[in-house]
Amino acid sequence: MQRLIAELYPTCRSITGNGLRSTLRTIGDQIPLTISEVPTGTQVLDWTIPREWNISDAYVKDASGERVIDFRRHNLHVVNYSTPVSAKMPLNELKRHLHTLPDRPDLIPYRTSYYKETWGFCLAHNELLKLPEGDYDVCIDSTLTAGALTYGECVLPGEIDDEVLVSCHVCHPSMADDNLSGIAVAVELARRLRTQPHRLTWRFLFIPGTIGSIAWLARNADRLNRIKHGLVLSCVGDPGGFTYKRSRRGAASIDRAVEHVLLHSGSSHRVIDFFPYGYDERQYCAPGFDLPVGCFMRSQHGTFPEYHTSADNLTFVTADSLEQSFETLWSVGQVIERDRVCVNLSPKGEPQLGRRGLYEGLAAGTDSRQYEMALLWVLNQSDGSHSLLSIAERARMPFNVIVRAADALTVAGLLKTTL
Amino acid sequence: MQRLIAELYPTCRSITGNGLRSTLRTIGDQIPLTISEVPTGTQVLDWTIPREWNISDAYVKDASGERVIDFRRHNLHVVNYSTPVSAKMPLNELKRHLHTLPDRPDLIPYRTSYYKETWGFCLAHNELLKLPEGDYDVCIDSTLTAGALTYGECVLPGEIDDEVLVSCHVCHPSMADDNLSGIAVAVELARRLRTQPHRLTWRFLFIPGTIGSIAWLARNADRLNRIKHGLVLSCVGDPGGFTYKRSRRGAASIDRAVEHVLLHSGSSHRVIDFFPYGYDERQYCAPGFDLPVGCFMRSQHGTFPEYHTSADNLTFVTADSLEQSFETLWSVGQVIERDRVCVNLSPKGEPQLGRRGLYEGLAAGTDSRQYEMALLWVLNQSDGSHSLLSIAERARMPFNVIVRAADALTVAGLLKTTL
Amino acid sequence: MQRLIAELYPTCRSITGNGLRSTLRTIGDQIPLTISEVPTGTQVLDWTIPREWNISDAYVKDASGERVIDFRRHNLHVVNYSTPVSAKMPLNELKRHLHTLPDRPDLIPYRTSYYKETWGFCLAHNELLKLPEGDYDVCIDSTLTAGALTYGECVLPGEIDDEVLVSCHVCHPSMADDNLSGIAVAVELARRLRTQPHRLTWRFLFIPGTIGSIAWLARNADRLNRIKHGLVLSCVGDPGGFTYKRSRRGAASIDRAVEHVLLHSGSSHRVIDFFPYGYDERQYCAPGFDLPVGCFMRSQHGTFPEYHTSADNLTFVTADSLEQSFETLWSVGQVIERDRVCVNLSPKGEPQLGRRGLYEGLAAGTDSRQYEMALLWVLNQSDGSHSLLSIAERARMPFNVIVRAADALTVAGLLKTTL
Repeated sequence: MQRLIAELYPTCRSITGNGLRSTLRTIGDQIPLTISEVPTGTQVLDWTIPREWNISDAYVKDASGERVIDFRRHNLHVVNYSTPVSAKMPLNELKRHLHTLPDRPDLIPYRTSYYKETWGFCLAHNELLKLPEGDYDVCIDSTLTAGALTYGECVLPGEIDDEVLVSCHVCHPSMADDNLSGIAVAVELARRLRTQPHRLTWRFLFIPGTIGSIAWLARNADRLNRIKHGLVLSCVGDPGGFTYKRSRRGAASIDRAVEHVLLHSGSSHRVIDFFPYGYDERQYCAPGFDLPVGCFMRSQHGTFPEYHTSADNLTFVTADSLEQSFETLWSVGQVIERDRVCVNLSPKGEPQLGRRGLYEGLAAGTDSRQYEMALLWVLNQSDGSHSLLSIAERARMPFNVIVRAADALTVAGLLKTTL
Repeated sequence: MQRLIAELYPTCRSITGNGLRSTLRTIGDQIPLTISEVPTGTQVLDWTIPREWNISDAYVKDASGERVIDFRRHNLHVVNYSTPVSAKMPLNELKRHLHTLPDRPDLIPYRTSYYKETWGFCLAHNELLKLPEGDYDVCIDSTLTAGALTYGECVLPGEIDDEVLVSCHVCHPSMADDNLSGIAVAVELARRLRTQPHRLTWRFLFIPGTIGSIAWLARNADRLNRIKHGLVLSCVGDPGGFTYKRSRRGAASIDRAVEHVLLHSGSSHRVIDFFPYGYDERQYCAPGFDLPVGCFMRSQHGTFPEYHTSADNLTFVTADSLEQSFETLWSVGQVIERDRVCVNLSPKGEPQLGRRGLYEGLAAGTDSRQYEMALLWVLNQSDGSHSLLSIAERARMPFNVIVRAADALTVAGLLKTTL
Repeated sequence: MQRLIAELYPTCRSITGNGLRSTLRTIGDQIPLTISEVPTGTQVLDWTIPREWNISDAYVKDASGERVIDFRRHNLHVVNYSTPVSAKMPLNELKRHLHTLPDRPDLIPYRTSYYKETWGFCLAHNELLKLPEGDYDVCIDSTLTAGALTYGECVLPGEIDDEVLVSCHVCHPSMADDNLSGIAVAVELARRLRTQPHRLTWRFLFIPGTIGSIAWLARNADRLNRIKHGLVLSCVGDPGGFTYKRSRRGAASIDRAVEHVLLHSGSSHRVIDFFPYGYDERQYCAPGFDLPVGCFMRSQHGTFPEYHTSADNLTFVTADSLEQSFETLWSVGQVIERDRVCVNLSPKGEPQLGRRGLYEGLAAGTDSRQYEMALLWVLNQSDGSHSLLSIAERARMPFNVIVRAADALTVAGLLKTTL
């Protein structure tokens, strides 16, 4: 995952353009990816696909001809979606187009202006302070032309059509946590899923933020009812604890699955209610869709000093954090894959487990007392109205122990899965 | 408000009689008031209108002819609804008719005996201790005759027939907080409402406690379904924090509106559950009516030392407290006036707010970040099942910010109010 | 109750056999008891009635012929349901059949092996340490033969067929708290109920654990819908605080009645949620029955050091604890006997209580203020949807005060019980 992040880091991405396309190509080297191009001007829900933005160079040169701000050194130096400009102007006029973070004076901020035509440069505040009065050559060699919005999809068909949606934004330029980390973990999940059978159909979306999910939703309106679970992944590589933001529904299966896994993981985490701001869950959870899609993060957007700055770089994302995020999400996937409602076929009194050898059916090292209780919980609660996840919640046991008990009881003929 | 309280303070009121009539006349000088007279003997629900009580004088004279207890000095000195008496008796016999507060020996208690014929005097315990043995002349020059129970109503018609009921008891003699303060604040609310358009019809009741609300309910049985919100006002002028007692329903709009306003007011307050004791909410919330009527107080009846004594006087009621009560209730009124259920007309994904100029539609000084979130909350939650108050509760924002957002979205064609 | 416990203590009981029969005979001396015998081999639900176990002697003799373990000294010395054995063996081989508690080295553990054929002895760990190497004579003079499982029932018919089930296990050998205490309290409840009229039909079951309740449930399948309330009684004589384990339903009348009584009792207690382990509530609360049966204990099984050892003896059970358990359960019984849904016949406003003399209808010493509030609560809440217990819960008053108010209101014609 770190290798993929490092490979993608230098590219200048935006919500359209060739940086986005090359990023999707790199993802497509890892997993099967269907690329879609939605032409400029296409109406998608309440929005219109904007002109395509590409940029080859941008700089501010001082009187001596030195590049005091240089897009080639860091692509955050240019306000994303800047209109082309080529002009000479005094510092005072230039300053109206310069963005800095006075409270974090060594960091370059990340700024965009997708839907309002303007241009600008971003730089460390300390660099701004060094600029002497005088005239500056300003150049942004960008184009805004009819083109397309590009996104990628990887679908891994399961036994049934019910879908899990995993959505990552791929429109941010050189920042590692937001959101190359989300891309890397999603790619890894898809890679591992391809190696084993799965019941649900998994759909991974790699889309530009907001306009990308809007476009995808517009083009897939008739298939949305297949989505039974969904997660937006973002900022999953930083060293912070987990943050899970519930779907608008608040207690959807995915919400309960994530909370259950986090609770039993022992890892530092917090769970927050849905609010209509953030990443693409805003779109999936719009009232006309209300899809069961939560947002899985480590540090929450907007709450850490590296957020949307040049400090969100390769050193901010650790292998341990990526791995822990991946494993946690894998466990969540296992819960939604394996959750089901069962019915006790011997519901009158307890069936005699001893004579069926169920008390002994333990792998070495398993906590046998917990397993026995799991057998009893599954039998007691399997009246057709409680899923295995519900039972795990009520029994305050890890889901996998409850599943193991349910599997053993099914083999013994005491339990069946309801259709 | 203080002026009205001072004007009404000296009058000896009761649940019937001329003190009550003159009080209603004074209220009628401020706001349009319809006076009703219900004759003695009229059956009202389970009750019967009692005989009318009037009193011109009352005293206890000692052997020297000095008035040691004198109704003219304070009308609390006579047990309200005392039967007439004219007798000479020794102190020991007199004492059976004397009421004091040994734990607050300088205060005259307030006592009534509406439905059991008796007579009595109330006095400071320290005064009682000074009375020497001997014979006393006792006189209560009262009448209990066929007459009427009087109450007043002020109706301010709104755009719709749905009503807000504001009810105050007007039967207490010289006490300022309980309940001249309630009367004064209600009058002020009516005065201000008359100066501006309002959607709901507001009905202000000035009634004697218990028998007055019983009588009003009996005579308006066929119109009660119009009452959508109601408040009993009492003890709203003392320096204590607010106390809101929920309606029997517990989560009626009025309950949530008051709680919301109190929460965001920053003022000291507590909210308590309904219990079947207190003021006229007992009648409005009887199971056969179950009207959504709460009780709004500052200090709660029975919990402060001035309660039902001569210490509940003009100095106990402050201009600041009256004003704060008024403004709080005004805000509550604005919530119930403006609460409504809206539907997002562009519910699939977020509509593009920027191109509609909605992000810039801010008055100077408004918290723009909060306003933007309010726009998103209103859009996200307006699926036809959440009122603006519900949205304010979930967003943990002041109601007026949510309303401003809803108004702007309505103007932009993105929202409509459901019928 | 202590006398009955002392009388039953020496007997070696098991889930079948003559010890069980003699125990039921002793119970039958106190209350009318119907004894049932279910033959070995009978299929009961998923189980089969096992062979009957009887034992006359058991010992381990050392080389000198001394009984170093002797069933006649304590019947816990033999693993309950041990198969017969007569053999000589060295200590090392014998040890595989010896059970001790190294962490409580002076206590004899209680062990059983009902459904797996084996034999064994239990002894204090300190005694085990004293056994020298050498050969031992081992004898268990037991029989496992076709016979029957025995249980007893005491039914006290009430005015209606709705039943209260009180279930105790009677299969444990010499242990006092678990569960001679449960038997003694149940017998005392039955004795007292016989002396006074009761609305509900009470059914007391004295059954061997698990297989006994399974057998009873199998033989009474068509009558189970009569059971409206139930309690398993166990460990009610030790000095610990009360533990109430809710039925699977969690908020059945019995659960709320027990919680209400415990709350107002002032005694130390805790209430825990249902879990599918413990005593016979496991069977009554199986999903195919889901009967409203909770488990009433003092110290919870498995959580105190005397549990299932020789320390659970006559000194562990106190008269005070038994008496307090009995009185608490009696109060619970009174709640379920007297709980009912009433309707206010004068629901519009408050009826005038004073003229009906209801405010004076107090026995001397009653808390009149609380009683007046109880009158108002009953009137306010009796809209046909709240039982008297619900009203007591909401009013936070003892149930008996609410009942007294409801009785007085009924006499006054203001209230009637719904059918």
